[in-house]
Amino acid sequence: MPRLILLRHGQSQWNLENRFTGWTDVPLSADGREEARQAGLRMKDAGLAPDFYFTSFLRRAIHTLQIAAEAMERDWVPVIKDWHLNERHYGALQGLNKTDTANKFGTEQVHEWRRSFSERPPLLDTSDERFPGNDLRYASLSATELPRGESLSDTIDRVRCCWEERIIPALRHYDEVLIAAHGNSLRALIMMLRHLSADEITKVELPTGQPLLIELDQRLEVTGQRYI
Amino acid sequence: MPRLILLRHGQSQWNLENRFTGWTDVPLSADGREEARQAGLRMKDAGLAPDFYFTSFLRRAIHTLQIAAEAMERDWVPVIKDWHLNERHYGALQGLNKTDTANKFGTEQVHEWRRSFSERPPLLDTSDERFPGNDLRYASLSATELPRGESLSDTIDRVRCCWEERIIPALRHYDEVLIAAHGNSLRALIMMLRHLSADEITKVELPTGQPLLIELDQRLEVTGQRYI
Repeated sequence: MPRLILLRHGQSQWNLENRFTGWTDVPLSADGREEARQAGLRMKDAGLAPDFYFTSFLRRAIHTLQIAAEAMERDWVPVIKDWHLNERHYGALQGLNKTDTANKFGTEQVHEWRRSFSERPPLLDTSDERFPGNDLRYASLSATELPRGESLSDTIDRVRCCWEERIIPALRHYDEVLIAAHGNSLRALIMMLRHLSADEITKVELPTGQPLLIELDQRLEVTGQRYI
Repeated sequence: MPRLILLRHGQSQWNLENRFTGWTDVPLSADGREEARQAGLRMKDAGLAPDFYFTSFLRRAIHTLQIAAEAMERDWVPVIKDWHLNERHYGALQGLNKTDTANKFGTEQVHEWRRSFSERPPLLDTSDERFPGNDLRYASLSATELPRGESLSDTIDRVRCCWEERIIPALRHYDEVLIAAHGNSLRALIMMLRHLSADEITKVELPTGQPLLIELDQRLEVTGQRYI
């Protein structure tokens, strides 16, 4: 039966600085790198042996995967990097300090941006350097795919493309698929896997650096899950 | 016009210890990691921006690629890991100290094993733990593909599969393809690219950690090359 392991990246430089990150490509902090290594060692000790990897286009997730793979001595496993697994795009909030933002817009508004299912952050202008259309790595995306700021609902919609077109086929061919990604893109996967409502998913919070092993049946229905 | 960059991994632990390595999966030394980082920085400074990566199944090449990619800030570029790009398999010599081997078999025989085009090293027994059939990562290979020890000619034959089936298609779709691999698998690629004879290729020696930029025309004929 197929198994899926979800791994949320550990602390990044901007987590440390309490800033909205989103698609900003910040590196892991030293603690974040150590979280990744420990996650790899725990998976290895638990006898896990993932034979296919997915990650996002963002280095904090890519490095988490590489460091964990090295700790598992499974560097050679094939990997797909897919921008659909990126963190939620935080629009014009990206780069702002969370406390400053609360002072400016009010705690309630910021809470709403962070925790609502369908509310979008202030959108970026396409001339803004933070707009993905101005980053070469997203050059192949169509104008309709390029986010100027996403609600959790928007993020889930684009993660669904990756789930249906790439992850499900991988789960049919491989025994154990590991996905190293972000709080909200992993949340999107959990929502689909567990058939959660919008209200339920906004309360789910995946801890960082703790691999979540999900057991599936042939129809890819969840039969069990536990943290490693 | 397509461009190809060949990068030979830097010093590994066993280079340090003067042992025959082949398919043994030894890590880079600290110097080897620094060579990779410098290679990445030089490529970046030279304005190179590879948009597709290839590497082998061996961590000294995989880590060289990852470290160079990080230095270039191009971690997100897609990668194919292919065992066909592994180092030449050194059969029963793998793990032996080169000086001890020369003392045992004679300098001339060792020179012949290392520098001849078609001479194979002593072959491994399939029960030997060094035989790739006993390593899970090669589980999907057929019995005829699994080497018990290779001549340079054998290595070239299997690198040719990867060249024809994966690298040529990538060169048709991407502008700049970076291959991080090993002395003999990269030599195989140079032989094919430059139409060298057996005698000529045994004299070609690619330096470690120095990216070789090869300019190609539409028919994938070499129009120029330089070290970066």
